[in-house]
Amino acid sequence: MSAELVFVGHIKTPYQTTAECPGQARPENGTSQIIVDEKYASAINGLKVGAHVQVLYWLDQADRSVLKTVPKWSEANEERGVFSIRSPARPNPIGLSTVEILSIDKTIMTVTAMDCIDGTPLLDLKPYIHHLKS
Amino acid sequence: MSAELVFVGHIKTPYQTTAECPGQARPENGTSQIIVDEKYASAINGLKVGAHVQVLYWLDQADRSVLKTVPKWSEANEERGVFSIRSPARPNPIGLSTVEILSIDKTIMTVTAMDCIDGTPLLDLKPYIHHLKS
Repeated sequence: MSAELVFVGHIKTPYQTTAECPGQARPENGTSQIIVDEKYASAINGLKVGAHVQVLYWLDQADRSVLKTVPKWSEANEERGVFSIRSPARPNPIGLSTVEILSIDKTIMTVTAMDCIDGTPLLDLKPYIHHLKS
Repeated sequence: MSAELVFVGHIKTPYQTTAECPGQARPENGTSQIIVDEKYASAINGLKVGAHVQVLYWLDQADRSVLKTVPKWSEANEERGVFSIRSPARPNPIGLSTVEILSIDKTIMTVTAMDCIDGTPLLDLKPYIHHLKS
């Protein structure tokens, strides 16, 4: 069983290779840009500067066959199931980050730091509502 | 540009139709079950009772052609872009909920309430790490 995703834009970051990616977004890593394709421009109506959004994106260079791996931060060198860690390697390599919108210029949003590589395909944006915890 | 998702399991809830879904998970709606396919069993290694996980799932009955809609809760009856609301109708209908794991029996996890329909395909599980805000 499967389903087809469409790419609705892409993400601009300072990282050209997965090796350069910091593995976790940090404020000192500057800003990123979310560029929504013209075709989906009307879907961003209602998003506002200062709001937090959950960004879903497609880690197209991830190894999808991995079910267990040693996380980067593991001191014990212990293998873990990929559903218990946030490694890009997983059956469906969907990345998920919560960012703040810093500015909006038509279909280009400047947001707080993201840790994916430059050109990463965009899948979805959802408003982050803290009390829903989701 | 597109990519193929695989379904790694499914979610068991009390709701047989989208009309029955509460539109937001509430604790009084009881528990749900996440059933991971045997093929992906090793990927859950490391998940523990009491942990919070972000669940990604595929809203396979959603209308993917909608870019603007009036949210259920709108008092002004105002149309909004789908990226600014959490409606299932969106180009990539990926559902996202954060739940607590209440028990684990092999590949079946009982978790706090979810609001999707019974049988919803499962895409991914990620540990929820509060300080990462993602």
